[in-house]
Amino acid sequence: MSESSATQQRLATVQNHLQVASCSAEEPKKKTPVESMTEERVKATFNVRDLTYFLDGGEKFTKIREKFMMELERDPTFRMYDMYDVTKDEIRVRTMEKFRTIVHYVSAEPVPIFTMRMQTISLIDPGFWTRFGVHYGLFFGALRGSATSSQFSHWVSKGALALNGMVGCFAMTELGHGSNVAGLETTATFDEAADQFVIHTPSVTATKWWIGGAAHTATHTVCFAQLIVRGKRYGVKSFVVQLRDTKTYALLPGINIGDIGKKMGRDGIDNGWIQFTNVRVPRTNMLMKHTKVSRAGEVKEPPMAQLTYGALIQGRVAMVVDSGNIAKKAVTIAGRYAAVRRQFSSNPHEAQETKLIDYAIHQYRLMPLLAMAYAFHFTGVETQKLYDNLMDKIESTQPNDASMTDVLDTLKETHATSAGLKAFCTWSTLNAIEACRQTLGGHGYSAYTGLATTYNDFAVHCTWEGDNTILTLQSGRYLVSCYREALAGKKQPEGVDYLNHLDTLLNQGCAVKKNEDILDFGIIQEAWGVVTANVVKKAGDDFETSLKQGMNPEAAYEECSQARLAAAKIHSFGYVFRRFAQAVGSAPEGLKAVLTKVCLLYGLYSIEQNAGFFLQYRYFTPSQMDYVRHQVNVLCRAVREEYIPLIDAFNLSDYMINSPLGVYDGDIYEKYFAQVKRQNPVGAPHPYLPLIQSLLRRDIEDDEPLEDDEDDEE
Amino acid sequence: MSESSATQQRLATVQNHLQVASCSAEEPKKKTPVESMTEERVKATFNVRDLTYFLDGGEKFTKIREKFMMELERDPTFRMYDMYDVTKDEIRVRTMEKFRTIVHYVSAEPVPIFTMRMQTISLIDPGFWTRFGVHYGLFFGALRGSATSSQFSHWVSKGALALNGMVGCFAMTELGHGSNVAGLETTATFDEAADQFVIHTPSVTATKWWIGGAAHTATHTVCFAQLIVRGKRYGVKSFVVQLRDTKTYALLPGINIGDIGKKMGRDGIDNGWIQFTNVRVPRTNMLMKHTKVSRAGEVKEPPMAQLTYGALIQGRVAMVVDSGNIAKKAVTIAGRYAAVRRQFSSNPHEAQETKLIDYAIHQYRLMPLLAMAYAFHFTGVETQKLYDNLMDKIESTQPNDASMTDVLDTLKETHATSAGLKAFCTWSTLNAIEACRQTLGGHGYSAYTGLATTYNDFAVHCTWEGDNTILTLQSGRYLVSCYREALAGKKQPEGVDYLNHLDTLLNQGCAVKKNEDILDFGIIQEAWGVVTANVVKKAGDDFETSLKQGMNPEAAYEECSQARLAAAKIHSFGYVFRRFAQAVGSAPEGLKAVLTKVCLLYGLYSIEQNAGFFLQYRYFTPSQMDYVRHQVNVLCRAVREEYIPLIDAFNLSDYMINSPLGVYDGDIYEKYFAQVKRQNPVGAPHPYLPLIQSLLRRDIEDDEPLEDDEDDEE
Repeated sequence: MSESSATQQRLATVQNHLQVASCSAEEPKKKTPVESMTEERVKATFNVRDLTYFLDGGEKFTKIREKFMMELERDPTFRMYDMYDVTKDEIRVRTMEKFRTIVHYVSAEPVPIFTMRMQTISLIDPGFWTRFGVHYGLFFGALRGSATSSQFSHWVSKGALALNGMVGCFAMTELGHGSNVAGLETTATFDEAADQFVIHTPSVTATKWWIGGAAHTATHTVCFAQLIVRGKRYGVKSFVVQLRDTKTYALLPGINIGDIGKKMGRDGIDNGWIQFTNVRVPRTNMLMKHTKVSRAGEVKEPPMAQLTYGALIQGRVAMVVDSGNIAKKAVTIAGRYAAVRRQFSSNPHEAQETKLIDYAIHQYRLMPLLAMAYAFHFTGVETQKLYDNLMDKIESTQPNDASMTDVLDTLKETHATSAGLKAFCTWSTLNAIEACRQTLGGHGYSAYTGLATTYNDFAVHCTWEGDNTILTLQSGRYLVSCYREALAGKKQPEGVDYLNHLDTLLNQGCAVKKNEDILDFGIIQEAWGVVTANVVKKAGDDFETSLKQGMNPEAAYEECSQARLAAAKIHSFGYVFRRFAQAVGSAPEGLKAVLTKVCLLYGLYSIEQNAGFFLQYRYFTPSQMDYVRHQVNVLCRAVREEYIPLIDAFNLSDYMINSPLGVYDGDIYEKYFAQVKRQNPVGAPHPYLPLIQSLLRRDIEDDEPLEDDEDDEE
Repeated sequence: MSESSATQQRLATVQNHLQVASCSAEEPKKKTPVESMTEERVKATFNVRDLTYFLDGGEKFTKIREKFMMELERDPTFRMYDMYDVTKDEIRVRTMEKFRTIVHYVSAEPVPIFTMRMQTISLIDPGFWTRFGVHYGLFFGALRGSATSSQFSHWVSKGALALNGMVGCFAMTELGHGSNVAGLETTATFDEAADQFVIHTPSVTATKWWIGGAAHTATHTVCFAQLIVRGKRYGVKSFVVQLRDTKTYALLPGINIGDIGKKMGRDGIDNGWIQFTNVRVPRTNMLMKHTKVSRAGEVKEPPMAQLTYGALIQGRVAMVVDSGNIAKKAVTIAGRYAAVRRQFSSNPHEAQETKLIDYAIHQYRLMPLLAMAYAFHFTGVETQKLYDNLMDKIESTQPNDASMTDVLDTLKETHATSAGLKAFCTWSTLNAIEACRQTLGGHGYSAYTGLATTYNDFAVHCTWEGDNTILTLQSGRYLVSCYREALAGKKQPEGVDYLNHLDTLLNQGCAVKKNEDILDFGIIQEAWGVVTANVVKKAGDDFETSLKQGMNPEAAYEECSQARLAAAKIHSFGYVFRRFAQAVGSAPEGLKAVLTKVCLLYGLYSIEQNAGFFLQYRYFTPSQMDYVRHQVNVLCRAVREEYIPLIDAFNLSDYMINSPLGVYDGDIYEKYFAQVKRQNPVGAPHPYLPLIQSLLRRDIEDDEPLEDDEDDEE
């Protein structure tokens, strides 16, 4: 080949290469992800900032939350971008590092402000929230709730409040015993001669289990154990027991502790197991605000044991609030992705694929979850108020006050309401997280998109501090008891107001004249009232029948447990709708229109999901139910128009969202890719190169398999 | 104190200690966990072994499965007890180690036997199943399905079958494109001068994403790209592209690959991203069984593009089968736990707490899931048969055969059925895993109880190889099209047989004279037939209305997507019930009674869950629906009597269950504790001792806080 023809050929090849390359760039102009997001924001018919203020309870609180978010984002110990890749041990070390910052705020901030800070932290780092909550919520809370004032002062002086010199955990559940606290096996036997209690784990199933902070952190615990004095059992009481030397962290004699190990989520908290082998503590380590044991071994039981339940309620209220917050986070990620992600084309004249959110089915998957997040937000606010009101009453009332009956009624109501809502909201939110994750398609399976971890972290809410099924049954039991009281003529509280109108509701047909009437808060509320009254009546009547057949009340409750479960669930739907509708009523004028749409969607979607009951009790006819179904689709489409502004109003910063698919600006692909590359650098060492080389080298060294050939020749 | 009085006091103290210790041992005699389990096994009214044989398709297959389970258990590379604690990188190394064993069986075993082996592996190690499946199912499957026979021989000679010298992956999805394969951006531009294709990634969103095995394992890929010849686009075709040097594993020029990183589950598979920058491959690397590009750049398109779908179906059938298997595993763990775990007491005369499984509500949570596991098992068997039948037909038919229409009909039916069932069964199973996990209460949150990992591993089934929502919509579209064909008089296949009786079914009231009639397979089947016919009609009519309003078919399908989704879901319930009822019909006499109970429970529970539709279309009256609800409880109680034998019949060894809470002998607490201690040895180094010491030492060095005091003094 001559020099010039070689040159010519090289030139032709170069031209050809360029031609091929330009060929790939023939695509029509398309909207970028950022443009796809931006165009959603101009659709708002309301002022987003105003809605944020309304949700937060005023501009002042929005500013405080924004301050918290910024402080967290800039705190190096709260860096979160790499959390999806760190090991269990690393997460635990990091969780510990954060204590220093947060302990500072415990003393510097008033309780309601600090509570808001912790709510914010729960959204981004639920593992830390738990580790911290174990000391302040459970251990310190037990001291506050069950110690006498001099005992309380003693432990505060030891550093229980300042986290100076001691840190606590809460040893209630055992390997073989969870929900039934009365069935705990650990014993606290009074040794009169020594004026001590002997704390003992009599069997493997009595091993304290799941104890948050026990594995590596706690120096002390509040241990729940069967009180035994002079051979007689007095039930489960609580005792402060030191576990470790506070300087060396060596376990004290008689204490055996291990790590529970890997969990579904929240690995930041070091759950452990504890066995006590004849561990002696001074008598005064028993928390004696309620039951007392004297030096002489006399046991004095409290007049009002119910009041000790107050502390349980607090955790459940926190979980209702957390449900709303986590639902907002999940919906933000899924919602923003759906505004940017394009797939197939619903319009052949469109050069670009269609946004996910423009598909009817995607709207149907997502819009009701957005409505639910709003509903749970308002429910959380109201539940918190209910709880605060209860605490005020309890603190301002003495056991012998005439108003004590009222306090006990409020306690009963708040206890049942918070139990039912804890179960209802955490279940619904867990399902919503998974539903949101699935709307991300394959990307939902990446750890970096955040929802898998959110699911795994959140799931524990369904079983701890009261297993959801048991709590729902308790709520159902409360409804049955209210129903029976109402039949007997006693006025029932607002939460179950429909029981005050049983005569009307049970005989009431649907008030709807024409289908359009259904689009009305009053009608929806009435519909829930009628259906709930019927479902509760069913449970109550089943209970009554069993009693008449000679069963004892416990057996009768057991017999109607399925009906109780249904009653509690239906009750919760109606309850949450009422809270939402009420909030819309009190919203500023400029927000009413949009919130009304969202609230109607929540109400009608819930009815559609429970259509069986509405048809069963003939509140709606089949054709009205078809109308409800149709309107759910119409409302999904209507809410879709403003759904990005509705999400923006949640006002969660990109740091809080911690998902490249949920970023505010919509630049999801670049940010997702950047995240994946940052966490998994190209060119990192190959984790199993020799293994795969030796697998594939079987024909590299010699094309013919060695062994067989040799065998053949033998 | 004198020596003797000191001795006396010591003696008194010793006695006192002993007394206190003996005090703790006063408990009444209780059944051990093992005894609690054993008593369940005597309740069987059937021969468990016979049921196992029936499920497996005969004793011979049971023996084969048992052989597999034993081989896996004894293979050190398949040790699984510590899988919940290993890191992502460790899991990947282990997954690679297993290749050697399994590659051996690929060549040693006939395909159906090897398929059974892989089904077994999927139950214990889904990550490995995926990594292996990527090469044999996807990469090699693509060669088999899309290569010409000479191309196929070429790649086999290179080691594609024996995994000698090459290992493949499957580069279809891109960062910005998943379900819509036609929308992929990667280009394969024909360079006629060089007789090569230029494979190129034109943008970030075109980056191949989620590619299993790409990050560290694959040397070659089948890459899906837009075929461009002489500037004209011919749609997406597939091309073999080498990624790495098969000896050094260095990336080839133009190839950029990274690790996708941490996922929700299945970390054993190294998903990666790939960017091609003007990578050249010979023209013959395009797989040309269907579309062909000649040396001169002529493109010849295939007459029967539909036939290429066959390969897609296989994966979906595998997931239907996997759903049944994983449901069995989940139910085994939850079911055995419920036989042993005791909580509260439903009977005051009983010294011991009540077994979970003796609570009505626990039966209601668990028994329908057990019934579902059976239903999905039989559905899997039948779906596999449908698929095998299709493949036989395709292989024995030439494109011009007269029977080709029949083949295409079968293809259409199998495609739609497997799509709908894949979505239905994977969704239901995912929910069942979570429901089972929650029945373990707090322990369900431990990694060692297995269900959290099972959930995380299984979840991907809902989005890969066809997103569930999209598949359900496709199934709904098929139903609408069958409905329209049926209206036009064309006979429909068995799967949608109810459409052959529209006239009867749509006008049919309930045939039930007295409530007890409902407990009949025929009635339940009719009930599903009537309701499904109505729901499909609704979708079909909505579609028709839209067409009449002038919409094009695509827009009309989009308009009725919510109705299609509902139709597909309801159709699947009825379909699965029919498969189950059919299997009961063919069961040996000794098994019929127990299977009938389980099948009735599945049928009635599904009706209860969809009560709205049965009331809407007035097949059942509200009072009949109350009877259905009541019977579900009755059947739950009846199935509960034999549920441990029913679980035992699944015949999964403890190794396969890999959960101390699901062990056969019921000794759950000892084994759980042992597992936790083995994985988290007592006395292991403290992960953050200095951190916590410095936190608590603020008052160790000096009781008064330093800074404040000094500030005060200034």
